[in-house]
Amino acid sequence: MAEQPWVLHPDRALPTEPGQRSIAREIYASTAALPIVSMHGHIEPGAIRRNDAFGDPAELFIIPDHYLVRMLVSQGYRNSDLGVQPHQGDAPVETDHRLIWRRFAENWKLFRGTPTRYWMEHELSVVFGITQEPSAATADAIYDQLSASLSTPEFRIRALFDRFNIEILSTTDAPDSDLAEHAALADQGWGERVVPTFRPDGVFYPDRVTWRAAVRALGARCGREIVSYQGFLDALQERRFAFVAAGARATDHGHLTANTTPLAAADAERIFQQALSGPVDAASAEAFAGNMLFESARMSVEDGLVMQLHPGVARDHSAAIQQGYGADNGFDIPVAVDFTRGLQPLLNAFGLDPRFRLILFTIDETVYSRELAPIAGAYPSVRLGAPWWFLDSPAGMARFRELVTETAGFYNTSGFVDDTRAFASIPARHDLSRRVDAGYLARLVGEHRLTLDEATETAIDLAYTLPLTAYARRGAVTPAATPARAEAESAAQ
Amino acid sequence: MAEQPWVLHPDRALPTEPGQRSIAREIYASTAALPIVSMHGHIEPGAIRRNDAFGDPAELFIIPDHYLVRMLVSQGYRNSDLGVQPHQGDAPVETDHRLIWRRFAENWKLFRGTPTRYWMEHELSVVFGITQEPSAATADAIYDQLSASLSTPEFRIRALFDRFNIEILSTTDAPDSDLAEHAALADQGWGERVVPTFRPDGVFYPDRVTWRAAVRALGARCGREIVSYQGFLDALQERRFAFVAAGARATDHGHLTANTTPLAAADAERIFQQALSGPVDAASAEAFAGNMLFESARMSVEDGLVMQLHPGVARDHSAAIQQGYGADNGFDIPVAVDFTRGLQPLLNAFGLDPRFRLILFTIDETVYSRELAPIAGAYPSVRLGAPWWFLDSPAGMARFRELVTETAGFYNTSGFVDDTRAFASIPARHDLSRRVDAGYLARLVGEHRLTLDEATETAIDLAYTLPLTAYARRGAVTPAATPARAEAESAAQ
Amino acid sequence: MAEQPWVLHPDRALPTEPGQRSIAREIYASTAALPIVSMHGHIEPGAIRRNDAFGDPAELFIIPDHYLVRMLVSQGYRNSDLGVQPHQGDAPVETDHRLIWRRFAENWKLFRGTPTRYWMEHELSVVFGITQEPSAATADAIYDQLSASLSTPEFRIRALFDRFNIEILSTTDAPDSDLAEHAALADQGWGERVVPTFRPDGVFYPDRVTWRAAVRALGARCGREIVSYQGFLDALQERRFAFVAAGARATDHGHLTANTTPLAAADAERIFQQALSGPVDAASAEAFAGNMLFESARMSVEDGLVMQLHPGVARDHSAAIQQGYGADNGFDIPVAVDFTRGLQPLLNAFGLDPRFRLILFTIDETVYSRELAPIAGAYPSVRLGAPWWFLDSPAGMARFRELVTETAGFYNTSGFVDDTRAFASIPARHDLSRRVDAGYLARLVGEHRLTLDEATETAIDLAYTLPLTAYARRGAVTPAATPARAEAESAAQ
Repeated sequence: MAEQPWVLHPDRALPTEPGQRSIAREIYASTAALPIVSMHGHIEPGAIRRNDAFGDPAELFIIPDHYLVRMLVSQGYRNSDLGVQPHQGDAPVETDHRLIWRRFAENWKLFRGTPTRYWMEHELSVVFGITQEPSAATADAIYDQLSASLSTPEFRIRALFDRFNIEILSTTDAPDSDLAEHAALADQGWGERVVPTFRPDGVFYPDRVTWRAAVRALGARCGREIVSYQGFLDALQERRFAFVAAGARATDHGHLTANTTPLAAADAERIFQQALSGPVDAASAEAFAGNMLFESARMSVEDGLVMQLHPGVARDHSAAIQQGYGADNGFDIPVAVDFTRGLQPLLNAFGLDPRFRLILFTIDETVYSRELAPIAGAYPSVRLGAPWWFLDSPAGMARFRELVTETAGFYNTSGFVDDTRAFASIPARHDLSRRVDAGYLARLVGEHRLTLDEATETAIDLAYTLPLTAYARRGAVTPAATPARAEAESAAQ
Repeated sequence: MAEQPWVLHPDRALPTEPGQRSIAREIYASTAALPIVSMHGHIEPGAIRRNDAFGDPAELFIIPDHYLVRMLVSQGYRNSDLGVQPHQGDAPVETDHRLIWRRFAENWKLFRGTPTRYWMEHELSVVFGITQEPSAATADAIYDQLSASLSTPEFRIRALFDRFNIEILSTTDAPDSDLAEHAALADQGWGERVVPTFRPDGVFYPDRVTWRAAVRALGARCGREIVSYQGFLDALQERRFAFVAAGARATDHGHLTANTTPLAAADAERIFQQALSGPVDAASAEAFAGNMLFESARMSVEDGLVMQLHPGVARDHSAAIQQGYGADNGFDIPVAVDFTRGLQPLLNAFGLDPRFRLILFTIDETVYSRELAPIAGAYPSVRLGAPWWFLDSPAGMARFRELVTETAGFYNTSGFVDDTRAFASIPARHDLSRRVDAGYLARLVGEHRLTLDEATETAIDLAYTLPLTAYARRGAVTPAATPARAEAESAAQ
Repeated sequence: MAEQPWVLHPDRALPTEPGQRSIAREIYASTAALPIVSMHGHIEPGAIRRNDAFGDPAELFIIPDHYLVRMLVSQGYRNSDLGVQPHQGDAPVETDHRLIWRRFAENWKLFRGTPTRYWMEHELSVVFGITQEPSAATADAIYDQLSASLSTPEFRIRALFDRFNIEILSTTDAPDSDLAEHAALADQGWGERVVPTFRPDGVFYPDRVTWRAAVRALGARCGREIVSYQGFLDALQERRFAFVAAGARATDHGHLTANTTPLAAADAERIFQQALSGPVDAASAEAFAGNMLFESARMSVEDGLVMQLHPGVARDHSAAIQQGYGADNGFDIPVAVDFTRGLQPLLNAFGLDPRFRLILFTIDETVYSRELAPIAGAYPSVRLGAPWWFLDSPAGMARFRELVTETAGFYNTSGFVDDTRAFASIPARHDLSRRVDAGYLARLVGEHRLTLDEATETAIDLAYTLPLTAYARRGAVTPAATPARAEAESAAQ
C-alpha cells in the first residue's frame, strides 16, 4: 500500500452492490460540485477577516479536533500529550508539534471505521495532495509536506474558502459579542458569506460558574447593568436585533434536556435574583433554562431568527478533565432525551405559527422514529437538523434517513448541516453527506420507489436547497415559495 | 416520466441485489395471491352493510387519511384547507374537493420515501388503473378518472371487498355498540367476514371529558344505570359476551403507558365514584386505566377474547389542534414505554395461562430487542403484533423482523396486521408487508440460514396462517394444533 | 432436503452480495482457524478436571440451554416437560430424554432465524457429523447417533477442548469458592487454560433471600465470621487476592442498574447491619450494590483484576417460574439502563487511571451509540464487551459494530466474548462472530474505507488479540505495548 500512490477511490462511501453503486454514482454526480452551505459552524470570524494561516499540521489537524484527540486519549494519551493546553495541574503540555503529529500517525489504525478516518483521508489527499497513508514510517514526510503547503497563500483561509466553494458560513457568537468582526467582513464585501449566530447558553444556565460574568458582559454590551429578569429579556431582545442587523439567520441552544416549560414571571425573577447574588441549585437552573427556551421561541416569532436546539448531553462527565482542561474537552457524554413532553409547551404556544421555525438536533437516536419524525411530520414550524456530532458519520447519516424519512419525508429535514471547528474538514463532511444521501436515494430508486429524476432532485435539495430555505430568516427572506407555503402564509393572516 | 404510462414495477420494494431479488421474488410469488386477513381495522360496519360508495377522490383518499393530511399540515396547510371539518374556531373548511385533490397532487414530492407514497401508487395504479403520476399538471385528469370509477358498482365497498380477496375483517366498536350492523351483516351471510372488536378505552380513562357519557351509554346498553365499580365490571363482562356472540375475536386497548397494576377493589371504587361525581387527576386516571388492563386480561381468560395492547402515545399533543378539530387529529406523538415493568403484574397473573392471549404493539422501537422479543420469547400467552402506525412502512417492517426474530423467532409474532381507516389501502399494505417479509426471508436463504422451502412456508404463515391463529378466540376456535400446543393444552389440565 | 445429506454451506452468515462475499471470505479465512479465547464462560471447572462425559443428547443440548428451553416454553411447553427440574409444585418432570429430544426436533421450525438454529446446525453437523436436519421423522435416528458419539472418549470434555482449539477459558466462581478445582487443574498442567473469575453478585444484593448464607460462606472461607462492613470488604479483598493467585483475570458483575454511587462508610455499615439482622428494602439494597461496584473498582485498581459489568436485567420476571424452578430460569427480561449517569461516580474516581480496566456489556442497544461508544471513546480504562445474551446473534453483532465503531473504533472493544453454559456451542459462537465481523469489515473494504490488509489485521485482532489484551490483568501481564500505551503508562508515573 505504502509503495503505491495513495489515491482515494472515486466511489468511496457509495453502496457496494454494483447496481446500487451505479445509480448512486449518477445521483452523486449531480451534487458533488454544488456550493457548500454551512449554517452551523464554529470558525472564528476574525480568522476569516484577517485571512489567517493555519499554523503547523498539529495546530490544524490535531490540537483543536475533539474527535481526534478523544480517540487518542481513549487509548491512554493525556490531552496535554497532544498539545492541548491544561488550565491547571502540572501536566506539561507537549510543545513538539512534530512529535504530536507522529503520535497521531502511529495510531492511524485506531481510526479505522470512524468518520475521522474518512475526513482525514479527504483532507490529506484531496485538499493537500498527500500521496502516502499516515504511519510511523510516513509521519515526518507528511508533516513536512503539509507544513510546506500551509506556508503558502493557497492555504490561507480565504483561498480555501473559495476553493471549497463555500457560499455561506455561519459562525457561533456569544450574545455580548460586539459583532465587530462581522461588520469588518461586511465592509470587505463578505457580509453575505459569513453571518453570525446568536448562542445564549452562557446566560441561560444560572448555575454555571461563568453565568454572572456572562450576564455582566451582556449588560455592558447594552450599555447598562442588568438587575432584573425583565432587563435580562430586554437585553437579549436588543442583542438579537443587533444580530439580525448583522445578517444572523439563527439562534443556537445546547441544553441538557428538551424542557421548554415557561415560568411565571415572578418565579423567573426569583431565580434570576438568586443567581445574581449567590448559588442556584441545578433544578432551578434547569427550570430557568427551559423557560428561556420558551422565551427564545417567543422572540423568534417576533424577529424571525430560526431557532436551533440540540439537547441531551451531560457536559464535562469527567471532573478531572474539566478541572484540568476546562469545559467541553472531549468528555461530554449523551443522555436520553424526552422531546415529546419537553417540547410540548413551546410547540403548543408557537408550533403552528408560520412565523416560527425550529430545527431539532439529537445524539439520542432512539427519538428519530419515536418522537422527532412524528413531531416534524405534524408541526409546520419544525424541521429536523442533520445527524449531529458522533452521528455525523456514514452509518449515522444512513440511519437518520432510514429512521426519519418514512414518517417525516425529506422535506421536513434541514438538509446537511456540518458542526465543525475543523475548517479543513468542511468539504470532507459535505462530500460524505452527499455520498451517503446518494446511497440512500439509490436504494429507493433500486426498489422502484422513486425515479432517478426524483432522486436527483431530492439529493440537490438535501445538499443545497433545504439548508438555505430551512435557515432563511422568517419574514425576511422568503423560502422558495411552494404552493403549500403560499397557502399557509395567506391562511395565517 | 409523465409521457410514459405509469406502471408499477413488479419487483418494487424487493431487495435490490439481483441474487437476493431473485430469491425474494420466488418467496413473494407464494404469498402475493393469498387472501387478506385484516384483524385490526377501522372500517364502519354500516358502510359494508349498506354497500356504500366512497364519494369523491378527496373523500376517499385525503380527508380521512391521517398520514396524508398530517404531511401536508407539516408543510403549512391547515387541516381545514384539506377538508377536515373543524369542531370550533373560524377557519372555513375547504369545500372544493377538486382543489383539495389538487393540493395533494401538487405536493406529491413531499411523500417521497414514505409509505403513503407506496400505498397511493398501489391504489391509483393497481386498484384504479391510473396511468399518470400525480402532479399539478395531471391532478384534474386523475381526479376525473377516479371520480368516474367511483361512481360505478365495481368500486362500491363490497365489490372491492371481493376484489381485494379479504377473507375476514375486524371492525373497532365501542362497548356500548348495539352491534346491530354486525347482526345485519350476519343476516346477509357476512357474519364470518366482518367481525367486531371490543374497544373500551373510552370508559377506561376517567379523566377524559367524554368518560361520564361513555359510562352512561354503556349502562344504557345493559339496561341499567352504572353506579358502582362492580356494576361497571359486570357491564363490561356482559358486553364482552355480547361481542363474543357477535363473532368478536379480540379486544383492543390504546393506553398511554403499559402499566397493568391491579388496584384494590376499594381503591378502584373510590376513583370510580370520584369520576362519576367530578374531575379525576391524571395519576388516578392512569392508575384506574392500568387496573382495567389487568381486569380485561382476567376477563379474557374467561371469555377467550384475544387482548391487544398498543401503548405509548401522548395523544393530542397540540391543544390548538385538539380544540379546533377534536381528538386524535394527527398530533398524537409517541413516548418511551416500559413494557418490562408495566406488564409484570398482568403477566404474573395470566402470562402462563393457556387460555390467555396477549398481542403487543408499539411505536417505541427501542423495546423490540430489549423488552418485547424477550417477553414474547418466554411467555406462552404473548405474541408480537405487526409494526404499528408510523412503523407500518418498508424500513419499519424490516427493522421489526431484524430486531425481533433472533430472540422471539417468527412464530411468536402475529403475522401482518394492518391498522387502517383507508379501505382502499388495505391491499397495498398487505402487499407491501409480503414484499418486505419476502426480502427479509430471502436474506436468510442467501446467508444459508434457511432453505427456500422453509422461507416460503414461513412467508405464508406470516401473511396468512399466523394472523388467523393468533386472533383465534381462545377455547373457541382451536389454533392449528402443533405438537407443542397439544402438549401445553393437556399439560394445563 | 431430508433426502440429501445435510452439509452446512461454507459461506453461511457471510454477506449475500457476491462482491462483498468474496471479500468477506478472504477475511474470514484468516480468522477461521485461530485459537478460541473464551474469557466469560459458565463451565464447571470440576467437569474439566474430571474430564466428564456429557450424558445424553437432552442433557447436552436441551435441558441446560436457556435459549432453547425458553423458545419451547414460549410456545406452550412447561419447563418440566423439557426435563428442567422443578424446585416445588407438582408438575412431574419429564424423565424420558428421548421424548424431550423429540419435542425439540419436532419444533425445529420455531428456531428459524434465531442464533440457536445457527449454533445447533454447527454443533450437529460440524461437531457431531449429523447429516440430517432435525424433524419429527429424523429425531430418533439423530438421537441414536448423538448418543453413540457421546459415549466415546472423543466426545469427553477435554478431547473437545483440544478439538475446539480453546486456548484459555474462564469459569465463573462465587467469592467463597475454595478454588480447589482450579488448583487441581493447575496440578494437571491446565492452570493456564482454565482460569477462575470472581463473581460476587451473591453478596452484593442484601435483599436476596440467599444473601445471609452467602456472606456466612464468604466468612467461613476466610476462617472468620463477618460482622461488619469493613470485615466484609476485607474478606472480599482477601478472596480477590486468592483468585489472583489462582490465575483469575477478571471480576464479573450482573446488576439491575449501572449505579456506582459510593456510600459513606456509616451508611454502608448501617445497611449491612440491617441486612445481617433482617429484611432490607429494595432501594437500600440497590444503593448498597451500587456502592459495591464502586468498591470493586477501587479494589481492581489495587489488584489489577479486570472489571466486567453487565447491568439492566429484571431477573425472575415471572414469580411462578421463580417459585417453581428457582432463579434465572428463562424469564429474565431486560430494562433500559442509564450508563452515563450511573457510571459517572466510578469513572470520575478511576476512569483515567491506567491501572484500571472496565469492560461494559448491555442488552439495551439504545446505549450503544448514545452512551457506550462515547464513554469508551473517551475514558482510557473502558472497553466495550461483545454483544451480550440475546444480542449474541448475527444481526445483533452486526448492529453492535455499526452503532459502536464510528465513535469508539475497533480498538476500544474487547473482541469476541461468548457467555455460554453450553460447552458444545463455544466453537459455533466464535465461528459466527468471525463471520459477522468479516462481513462488517468487507463492507468497509467494499466502500473503500479500509484496505483488505487493514481489514484482515482488524479481524484477527477482534477474534484473538483483543480478548487476550482486554482481559490481561493490569500490572501483571502487559497488554501488547502500543506506542500509545507505552506513552500512557510512563505518563501516569
